[in-house]
Amino acid sequence: MTVTLAVDCMGGDHGPAVVVPAVFDFLRRDETAQAILVGRVDALKPHLAAGASVSARWRVQAASEVVGMDEPVASAMRNKRDSSLRVMADLVKAGEADAGISAGNTGALMAISRFVLKTLPGIERPAICTILPTRRGHTYVLDLGANVDCTAEHLQQFGIMGASLVAALEQREQPSVGLLNIGEEDIKGNETVKRAAELLKTSGLNFHGNVEGNDIWEGTTDVVVCDGFVGNVVLKSSEGLAQMISAGLKEEFSRNFITRLAALAALPVIQAFKRRFDHRSYNGAGLLGLRGVVFKSHGSADAYAFRCALERAAHAARERLPEKIAARMAAVMGAMPPAPTLCD
Amino acid sequence: MTVTLAVDCMGGDHGPAVVVPAVFDFLRRDETAQAILVGRVDALKPHLAAGASVSARWRVQAASEVVGMDEPVASAMRNKRDSSLRVMADLVKAGEADAGISAGNTGALMAISRFVLKTLPGIERPAICTILPTRRGHTYVLDLGANVDCTAEHLQQFGIMGASLVAALEQREQPSVGLLNIGEEDIKGNETVKRAAELLKTSGLNFHGNVEGNDIWEGTTDVVVCDGFVGNVVLKSSEGLAQMISAGLKEEFSRNFITRLAALAALPVIQAFKRRFDHRSYNGAGLLGLRGVVFKSHGSADAYAFRCALERAAHAARERLPEKIAARMAAVMGAMPPAPTLCD
Repeated sequence: MTVTLAVDCMGGDHGPAVVVPAVFDFLRRDETAQAILVGRVDALKPHLAAGASVSARWRVQAASEVVGMDEPVASAMRNKRDSSLRVMADLVKAGEADAGISAGNTGALMAISRFVLKTLPGIERPAICTILPTRRGHTYVLDLGANVDCTAEHLQQFGIMGASLVAALEQREQPSVGLLNIGEEDIKGNETVKRAAELLKTSGLNFHGNVEGNDIWEGTTDVVVCDGFVGNVVLKSSEGLAQMISAGLKEEFSRNFITRLAALAALPVIQAFKRRFDHRSYNGAGLLGLRGVVFKSHGSADAYAFRCALERAAHAARERLPEKIAARMAAVMGAMPPAPTLCD
Repeated sequence: MTVTLAVDCMGGDHGPAVVVPAVFDFLRRDETAQAILVGRVDALKPHLAAGASVSARWRVQAASEVVGMDEPVASAMRNKRDSSLRVMADLVKAGEADAGISAGNTGALMAISRFVLKTLPGIERPAICTILPTRRGHTYVLDLGANVDCTAEHLQQFGIMGASLVAALEQREQPSVGLLNIGEEDIKGNETVKRAAELLKTSGLNFHGNVEGNDIWEGTTDVVVCDGFVGNVVLKSSEGLAQMISAGLKEEFSRNFITRLAALAALPVIQAFKRRFDHRSYNGAGLLGLRGVVFKSHGSADAYAFRCALERAAHAARERLPEKIAARMAAVMGAMPPAPTLCD
């Protein structure tokens, strides 16, 4: 099924040098996909020659401005009406693209996407949903930082959105949903979480109940719901711990001649391990709850990681993710899916 | 300096079989330390013979009841007045012991300690503070689950208590304190965290400002302050991630004959790595803010890990930790340290 992605080529640590080759690689593998490369033409130009073999399926859309990775959201919104982020969102809004994707400033991406696309009926706050590797496979965690003061209703909506994402990407109608808490028992946690559990129980979801921090990596549930403060801290702390372990192992293996010999022997095994938990293949976090498909790539993504995010965004667009979320929300709210208003 | 520890021998996954030998080992290494072994006499008896060489420095204090690891706190408080936890706390309160320690039910330990010992002047809520290994050494994190709905004032008090603990255990007067947040900038985070940063700035602490999840493992600050919900989730998620990585490596190394050979070569290096980050040596979390020293051991601690917790508790008692916390609190509140009321 044809799908067109609007790609912000200016975001991330490496900009067009990584994003443009990733798009071409993606197009070569996905023969019904098309792409709109959004960015400063002078910055894109040096990288375009490599796309000759798929030139029928991409075009450049000029955007004269770039939102900085650390630029305040308000400044990006107010002063940069022709930023690559904004033009990308406008293309999704206009229906010229089925999904937008960026490795840029997360706060600005969320704010601009929300301003341009608006949220779905019944969704008060969009959320960011990422995929993490687990012992059994992988799990989807949301929210990861878009919302730092969540109500129980927000957490309920996150559960519905996360379940919809898994249903769309993995063809499973009733993925299990866990609520991140500090104990499995119903009496644990703060008032917001306790009330969220009550709401999730009556949301027509396959609600597992409370899960704890370790359950994320056990893969106990398909979806883990938490507020954006907790999700962000857990994600960054996990990245930090994994890096510390990796650096510590490297130090021990390079300590002396004998340990370096041991490293030679162990290298293929450690590389197999790294491939198995390769964080690059999990790249591509969904901004859920919007009237359009928007994905965020990690800022440090390389071309392989960015391609994974493109594939995920294309998949979500083909599965009409926003309509699926809207339908679930409508079912919970006791109404018919308000499909005609999806793209108002 | 003489110090007497009241040890709940009935708590943890292994009870007296682990706790009692750990106490004797501790006494053999610390010649001015004494211990009161608290628990059911019939359960302790089989393990006491091993303490003959240090028999002048320990005694048994009978307690007829045991609080279950999963027993509700209210039931433990109301129905078990002669539990080993309660008797341990009573010994600290009566001044017969300088510190209490248990590997038992954390919630019950906190509730009973708070009920028996009370909190220090100005401290609204006690907090649990653990030590975690970092790239540079280690860091102290609190709260880890005692408080799930924290105000900015609570977080400020946690900062003061954590700094006092580091000052006591590591002889550094002004350890650095970071506030766990979702970004380094002042504008990040929820309202509670923003106000807590303001309060911490005016607390006479060496306040570093906001830190993020990865900073825990970087060892950016000596103390990391967060609410108990976030702290608990981060701790359990980190344990889960470390276990997943460890299990994954083990699986890759045992995949076939060649990888098993590689494992033989790599084993000494991996063991050196494990020793360096040995979580057992970080065992012993302080219950801070009480009018007495109470430490919590991990429930699954072995004898070595439990001994580490005993050493930490003895150290904190010798350094008169509660008085140090009270003095810092008094300084912040603009009053003289209310030392005479410490043991009212």
